[in-house]
Amino acid sequence: MTDPTAARAAVPGRAVRTSGTVRVVGAGLLGASVGHALSRAGVDVALADTSPAQLRLAIDYGAGRAAADGDRPSLVVVCVPPDVVADVVEAELKAFPAAVVTDVASVKLAPLVELRSRGADLTRYIGSHPMAGRERGGAISARSDIFAGRPWVICRDGETRPSDLALVEALALDVGAVPIEMSPEEHDGSVALVSHLPQVVASLLAARLADAPEYALGLAGQGVRDTTRIAHSAPELWVQILEANAPAVVAGLDALAADLAGLADALRETERPGARREIAETIRRGNVGVERLPGKHGQRREFVSFVVMVDDVAGQLGRLFGDLGELGVNVEDLRLEHSPGAPLGLAEIAVDKGTLEAAVRGLEGRGWRIASTDDE
Amino acid sequence: MTDPTAARAAVPGRAVRTSGTVRVVGAGLLGASVGHALSRAGVDVALADTSPAQLRLAIDYGAGRAAADGDRPSLVVVCVPPDVVADVVEAELKAFPAAVVTDVASVKLAPLVELRSRGADLTRYIGSHPMAGRERGGAISARSDIFAGRPWVICRDGETRPSDLALVEALALDVGAVPIEMSPEEHDGSVALVSHLPQVVASLLAARLADAPEYALGLAGQGVRDTTRIAHSAPELWVQILEANAPAVVAGLDALAADLAGLADALRETERPGARREIAETIRRGNVGVERLPGKHGQRREFVSFVVMVDDVAGQLGRLFGDLGELGVNVEDLRLEHSPGAPLGLAEIAVDKGTLEAAVRGLEGRGWRIASTDDE
Repeated sequence: MTDPTAARAAVPGRAVRTSGTVRVVGAGLLGASVGHALSRAGVDVALADTSPAQLRLAIDYGAGRAAADGDRPSLVVVCVPPDVVADVVEAELKAFPAAVVTDVASVKLAPLVELRSRGADLTRYIGSHPMAGRERGGAISARSDIFAGRPWVICRDGETRPSDLALVEALALDVGAVPIEMSPEEHDGSVALVSHLPQVVASLLAARLADAPEYALGLAGQGVRDTTRIAHSAPELWVQILEANAPAVVAGLDALAADLAGLADALRETERPGARREIAETIRRGNVGVERLPGKHGQRREFVSFVVMVDDVAGQLGRLFGDLGELGVNVEDLRLEHSPGAPLGLAEIAVDKGTLEAAVRGLEGRGWRIASTDDE
Repeated sequence: MTDPTAARAAVPGRAVRTSGTVRVVGAGLLGASVGHALSRAGVDVALADTSPAQLRLAIDYGAGRAAADGDRPSLVVVCVPPDVVADVVEAELKAFPAAVVTDVASVKLAPLVELRSRGADLTRYIGSHPMAGRERGGAISARSDIFAGRPWVICRDGETRPSDLALVEALALDVGAVPIEMSPEEHDGSVALVSHLPQVVASLLAARLADAPEYALGLAGQGVRDTTRIAHSAPELWVQILEANAPAVVAGLDALAADLAGLADALRETERPGARREIAETIRRGNVGVERLPGKHGQRREFVSFVVMVDDVAGQLGRLFGDLGELGVNVEDLRLEHSPGAPLGLAEIAVDKGTLEAAVRGLEGRGWRIASTDDE
């Protein structure tokens, strides 16, 4: 219902690295978003899609123009489902012998192995993976900003020419992403750990709720909600992603299963010497792991939070953030906590450690009830 | 650093159901919070704790007065760690033969079984469990509002007298909670599913990150962050909780392990007939489970969300919520999404389906960039 073509004019004063025509194959969420971002930067984007309806939609929304016979792209970006990546990359390498071909699939080793087995020209293929996406797919969900500040992994191997690598890096930079070089193996192991395993775990946990009694669900709090949030994901897409990265995911699942079995055994016999220590170690190692996740902006700066009581009214949040703005406090993170059945809410606000005191005193001076702070 | 005694005066015009003295044993987070809430409502709260320092702190913060020899409480609320609940409840039943004794431990069957085996007077013991808490414990983190709108499970059995049950219900209502009756078995199974299993799963998943290479963690997004958020929990507390509810937790872990093994097998042989269907079913059953979780306010009203681009500045959020307030839009949920390294942020705002269009049009009319909406 909103019009994504609004504010699509080229951003003045921004240097664009990509030159010539970029051909984008596949006008779904990622392809159309690449198209939006490049078009917005003034780059000529030639779009192709096996679905004429999807293609027309992406063009209508401003992702580029339809690919034409005389196109001579310097770069081809393949944005198709994982199961056809190798086919499409192979075809594009043949159709455009002067172009560098990249893809954006979320798994990088399987397509490379497949292309190698087919004797494709791997000097011109550079796999890549923007760590961006949304829960909903399709050209209609595309937007030019989904790559902003996100890592865009680029996989080089021995056959890659530096000048070709520079083309893909320019693409990543032009859509606002942060290019990161990795081997295909490093990439696949990484996404298995920080993306595929969390997805599977969230789905398996949420599946336990499918047959749960209604009264049990009534006791659900924020913890289970957070832990299962990504279980909303689409089965069709995830079958492909998990299959394409099966070895790395299976390795992660096996390690997890061993840990889980150890914990279950300890809980079966808590009186056994060492059992309680094993249980504590599970939670403690979780502490260590979660602490290692980079915070906002990829940094591990120290943020502290405090909780403000608010009514369930947008106007109150408006006043709160207005007051914080007047106090010169930068909000680093924000979480609204709701009490089932209650009209009030709690806003947990994270700020830089240095500004906590000023923020809390300032808000109290303006009549806000601060429920708690991190450093009490 | 904030003064929790502020705004601790009895709320005028609010009917208080609890009468007489309430004795609270254990002045940690929950005990002191019960004390705060009851004191605020004008109830006489007599506090006891084995730690004189903890007791003094709770009293200083306004949670009640020190228990005295002549106290004749009508109700005793035992708020001690799970491993000593049965001991303390037994002692309190003996010390105050006219009082009803309840506890707030997160597991309900184990203390009941233990008390029964000791021949305690179970007509006067009613186990209960407020579904409230914070990541940090101690009297210093206590606040009177942590029970507001939260379920407070009350476990009755055949020996419970209705008038005694009413005392515990009055306590729950007076601190702002929603009393819910359940059997101890129903309670323990429910919390295993919606609290203990999510905790264990989050910890096991986060533990996989403890030895992960730095470059893998650099690719972490919101999904893994949400899925592992509760892995920050304290090992000491969770050893006790998991041990006390071990049978229900083990049953959940075994079921989870079976599902996990099935998925890993399917991923080991994706070409086997039915394997892909098994993978898809895992994700689909996760969809079903997560959809069953009640939303805010315990209801399943249909909320839709849209995403607004904001700078990383409190003032901008202030203007946004100010605008939403002027537009008469009630914000049902809110999530700030950050792009690592980027100065901009995305605010995902959930509103009632009926107000989505007015909210989006109104905000666009005021110059906001709406990145996407749910119903595009």
